Amino acid sequence: MKAMYRTGRELRQAARSGNFSGHTSGEAPGSVQANLVILTRDWAWDFLVFAQRNPKPCPILEVGEVGDPLTRIIADGADIRTDIPRYRVYIDGDLAEEPLEITSRWQEDFVFFLLGCSFTFEHALSEAGVPLRHNQEGVNVPMYRTARECAGAGRFKASPMVVSMRPLTPADAIRAVEITREYPGVHGSPVHIGDPDGLGIADITRPEWGDPVTIRQGEVPVFWACGITPQLAALVSRPPIMITHAPGHMFVGDKADYEFRLSG
Amino acid sequence: MKAMYRTGRELRQAARSGNFSGHTSGEAPGSVQANLVILTRDWAWDFLVFAQRNPKPCPILEVGEVGDPLTRIIADGADIRTDIPRYRVYIDGDLAEEPLEITSRWQEDFVFFLLGCSFTFEHALSEAGVPLRHNQEGVNVPMYRTARECAGAGRFKASPMVVSMRPLTPADAIRAVEITREYPGVHGSPVHIGDPDGLGIADITRPEWGDPVTIRQGEVPVFWACGITPQLAALVSRPPIMITHAPGHMFVGDKADYEFRLSG
Repeated sequence: MKAMYRTGRELRQAARSGNFSGHTSGEAPGSVQANLVILTRDWAWDFLVFAQRNPKPCPILEVGEVGDPLTRIIADGADIRTDIPRYRVYIDGDLAEEPLEITSRWQEDFVFFLLGCSFTFEHALSEAGVPLRHNQEGVNVPMYRTARECAGAGRFKASPMVVSMRPLTPADAIRAVEITREYPGVHGSPVHIGDPDGLGIADITRPEWGDPVTIRQGEVPVFWACGITPQLAALVSRPPIMITHAPGHMFVGDKADYEFRLSG
Repeated sequence: MKAMYRTGRELRQAARSGNFSGHTSGEAPGSVQANLVILTRDWAWDFLVFAQRNPKPCPILEVGEVGDPLTRIIADGADIRTDIPRYRVYIDGDLAEEPLEITSRWQEDFVFFLLGCSFTFEHALSEAGVPLRHNQEGVNVPMYRTARECAGAGRFKASPMVVSMRPLTPADAIRAVEITREYPGVHGSPVHIGDPDGLGIADITRPEWGDPVTIRQGEVPVFWACGITPQLAALVSRPPIMITHAPGHMFVGDKADYEFRLSG
């Protein structure tokens, strides 16, 4: 897919001015993309502790100051209320609307979180020549609810970890472990390899989110913790208000994917 | 130094019953040791965001539930009020007392934080044959305030990063980078190698905390982010009450040092 926008800044400007409300997959190649969660400060505490206890599914890249909608870390001065192509507003855990900006909904006690996304490590895998089946087949990565529980925190009860799956040859699976362990800030190394039963997944051909992909003879399914996990945990606990990005409509930052490689 | 206690549980029991109030260096060999910070929930938010923004100096291993003094992650059911050999109570940023337990001081809105400590990666360095000068010379590791600023968070203003220093041959310095990068949960890889001026350290022979150590001909100083950083940041912001462990009198957990190696 050919990118419409070369940089995160260009894409955010287009989103802000109302000229872009589409998916961000393939946009601003090499720039970090992130999941958005906005909660009131009261609920934000539980969310941040939940993320600290479950770093693989909930890799936090940036936490805003209370009441401040401007980013400072993964992008310089982006406005979290306008610079994402599409949002979802959840009231008491139910989806209420899907607006293109949330300026009028912003509250003085809001805190935003930006969480790492597998696009970042997929970029590293592709660069290393590890093929990604869902890209080859032009579909979304398959995602599954597992029997593995995340540790609870406050009102965020223990809840299931969600994983994404990529089928790989054993040799590529080993390389994928080596590569993704270098990216602890964006889910890190896999949580499981092989038999889906080990995660309590009954039918690998029926993902709960995304699309099924072909697992070829001799390939093993490789499972990574998935950023849907924290949104699921938050929804189950039914906060009075939560705002997220709409699926596939991510925040696109200024930082490069490679900057999330483990380092100083 | 010969350990008096074989396990973290034994040491914590001795601290709880008043039979041990000493330094924990060398105790329960191979068990993780951790720095303690207790704040009210109101201040805990700023502290947790500060830590998220500065993971190298502030590696958080466990956050307690609000009002709950029991650990669940790095030790099973340790009582944070009694199981550390010695505490420090700071009122409005000033040291007020140094009690052996804090049961009567515990508040319903207290949150405890346990933060990683360089003992964990030093264990890994020693196992790999990388010599530690301060151990060879029987002194504390030298620590320095730097000109490098940590990102602020809420009432925790931008404040200087504190570093510890170990002199190594260039070959050992390279191995030390390789080894400690595997421990992002306990400060990770160094923040600087070589000229102390690069960190704004004027006189390497005069550390601000700990003791000076010999830098031999052909060795380079290697600097790691240090767990004193968050305590310094907290004190500067003068919370009404903060409780920490007394220096050298650490929390000793059940988890093994090697469990903090980067992995699933």
